[in-house]
Amino acid sequence: MPSVSDRGKLMPDSPIRKLAPLADKAREKGIKVYHLNIGQPDLPTPQAAMDAIRNIDRKILEYTPSEGIRSLRQKLVGYYKKFEIDVTVEDIIITTGGSEAVTFAFMSCLDPGDEIIVPEPAYANYEAFAIVAGAKIRPIVAHIEDGFSLPPVEEFEKLITPKTKGILICNPNNPTGYLYTQEELGAIRDLVKKYDLFLFSDEVYREFCYTGAPYISAFHLEGIGQNVVLIDSVSKRYSECGLRIGALITKNEEVRRNVMKFCQARLSPPLIGQIAAEASIDADPKYMLNNYNEYVNRRKFLIDGLNRIEGVYSPIPMGAFYTVAKIPVDDADKFCAWLLSDFEYENQTLFMAPASGFYTDPKNGIDQVRIAYVLKKEDLAVCLKILEEALKVYPGSKVRGKVGEIASS
Amino acid sequence: MPSVSDRGKLMPDSPIRKLAPLADKAREKGIKVYHLNIGQPDLPTPQAAMDAIRNIDRKILEYTPSEGIRSLRQKLVGYYKKFEIDVTVEDIIITTGGSEAVTFAFMSCLDPGDEIIVPEPAYANYEAFAIVAGAKIRPIVAHIEDGFSLPPVEEFEKLITPKTKGILICNPNNPTGYLYTQEELGAIRDLVKKYDLFLFSDEVYREFCYTGAPYISAFHLEGIGQNVVLIDSVSKRYSECGLRIGALITKNEEVRRNVMKFCQARLSPPLIGQIAAEASIDADPKYMLNNYNEYVNRRKFLIDGLNRIEGVYSPIPMGAFYTVAKIPVDDADKFCAWLLSDFEYENQTLFMAPASGFYTDPKNGIDQVRIAYVLKKEDLAVCLKILEEALKVYPGSKVRGKVGEIASS
Repeated sequence: MPSVSDRGKLMPDSPIRKLAPLADKAREKGIKVYHLNIGQPDLPTPQAAMDAIRNIDRKILEYTPSEGIRSLRQKLVGYYKKFEIDVTVEDIIITTGGSEAVTFAFMSCLDPGDEIIVPEPAYANYEAFAIVAGAKIRPIVAHIEDGFSLPPVEEFEKLITPKTKGILICNPNNPTGYLYTQEELGAIRDLVKKYDLFLFSDEVYREFCYTGAPYISAFHLEGIGQNVVLIDSVSKRYSECGLRIGALITKNEEVRRNVMKFCQARLSPPLIGQIAAEASIDADPKYMLNNYNEYVNRRKFLIDGLNRIEGVYSPIPMGAFYTVAKIPVDDADKFCAWLLSDFEYENQTLFMAPASGFYTDPKNGIDQVRIAYVLKKEDLAVCLKILEEALKVYPGSKVRGKVGEIASS
Repeated sequence: MPSVSDRGKLMPDSPIRKLAPLADKAREKGIKVYHLNIGQPDLPTPQAAMDAIRNIDRKILEYTPSEGIRSLRQKLVGYYKKFEIDVTVEDIIITTGGSEAVTFAFMSCLDPGDEIIVPEPAYANYEAFAIVAGAKIRPIVAHIEDGFSLPPVEEFEKLITPKTKGILICNPNNPTGYLYTQEELGAIRDLVKKYDLFLFSDEVYREFCYTGAPYISAFHLEGIGQNVVLIDSVSKRYSECGLRIGALITKNEEVRRNVMKFCQARLSPPLIGQIAAEASIDADPKYMLNNYNEYVNRRKFLIDGLNRIEGVYSPIPMGAFYTVAKIPVDDADKFCAWLLSDFEYENQTLFMAPASGFYTDPKNGIDQVRIAYVLKKEDLAVCLKILEEALKVYPGSKVRGKVGEIASS
């Protein structure tokens, strides 16, 4: 039997999906599993998107141009203008989800051995896409005690080597919900300028900023227009993750030329996804506002609830729909697995993502979990109750008193 | 401005799509362009697929499992059974088009520097996907004079080094339409067994075999079940290239484990594409038969027509819907570009793919083009006329007499 690639073996298991088999087994036992592990919103896809799909009037579902359908790219120009992001149709390349946009950005800008600096906890798949490109992520750890604010630029500067080709940020941040400040982004901008780096900026959660401060895009930062590669996706903002439509946006023509070669090799992004995505941009403004308000309410409800549980601490996320919370357990990986395989509260349990997978050194996340508030308030209330009860009886719990354990012993 | 990746620069331009800007310009001038360059059939997508899309009854277009929707995978088990390919649901992983299946196969089996042997002319994007994986393609040239039959296994054996990890075949073949014989595949099988190699087998054109001989899949070859990685796609067989649904099928669990990590990183294949692909498997058998008959007719019409043109030669393709033909020109790249930028016949012209891009050494294809017979007979008749007229006046034509040149001088 021929041996498989070392690269494949190096690839991390997804912290978001690796416990899925345990969840399946729990369900087989008849236990209801609440999914807080994955950024799959329970909010409806816009009616405009559903209508566009139902009204497709084509005989052949053919390839689209490799860079995406022009009318979608045109519509996106207008969409970005609302956020004062000034780009042309030519700057926008449609990708198969934000995932492909990150992959193609890395492939086009980085060679094997090249390094990028990434504040963490970070979206786990950046590491996977870096492995695909043969590049190396140099992490800078942000701390829960600092509310996951950006570590000082001096920390970044220490990591810069001749191999450093870029910095990657996700803003608003997945998994922490942190929103970078004007000052923090200014510091990043100066660094990018000083060392002439790429700035890969994943801004798929821009619609979900919960502070009064204006949303700041990498494209708003002065003098680094040629350095910015923006990653986008319609998955989260229109609750249409299954369409697999994202975008890579850059004013750097050389980058685009490289990206287009990877686009041509895979021929075309999904046709129907593009049709639906284009229609979604025209979604009723009330739809967007409702979703926004819903997340604002869920956020308050969840974070308040978490912080009321003994030993649990969550900073206030200012964007996206995630939080990384500290929980009083020996090992969050074990706890999350245990929740699915050994626990139930009134025949229900929780699926959370252990935060270890969001750090290069898993120890940094040993007592943290990522929670996606993609369920409605009533469900979140049940989830909080389940978490509270679980912490009382989990063998590795650090909660003083462990009432449950006594009660059940 | 930071420098882009060398890998991106290495990536080949798509021979199928690189002339598209010239085609756009021709159209802007009001010239009708016949597309023989790309495997985009003009036949309709099955009604069952269109109905499935129109009847989608979901509120949220969510992620699917990373390995694809189970009911689609289940249905595929039955589909393959009809071809005596015995696989289980677990063996089948749904990908975003056949392109992603090839990419993930390479990523999961090959490390940078590893080599695979590929008979050429070959589908140009294999080279692109090999570059993505850092692997090296060692080509074996099949010759038009031999009707593109498989070069003798001794030729393969000469190329085997400690770095050789696999052989890739496309059967029925894109771009030549060649269908490998039982004997040829037996020889490949022996080689795979002897050196314990992976056999990557791209069989997306299996529905389109035009000889009486039974279709032979890599999975029919004895004793190499753990070595075979089958690449599939619904794009061509149901004329739904825009859905972007393919599959990677292997009985090798270690390979699957690696592949799944790449699948999880990109989260999910397209939801709607999977729904439509599943429905397509139930397409009316008459639909499949009509398409088949249509290609049989087009093939005869096109190949007879090509061989009637002075200086043009096409072997008879026995499968798929392409042929690689020899044309009497100095340089097929120049000729194909010239057709789009400098020629028109009754305000019409042709878009063909120069064959140079299907060979590692472009010289091998210098006087060859790939023609996709994806247009109806009446259109192919016009195409043949345009080609004939073009060869009369093209400055680099080798046709004796060059009647047109005299007439136009």
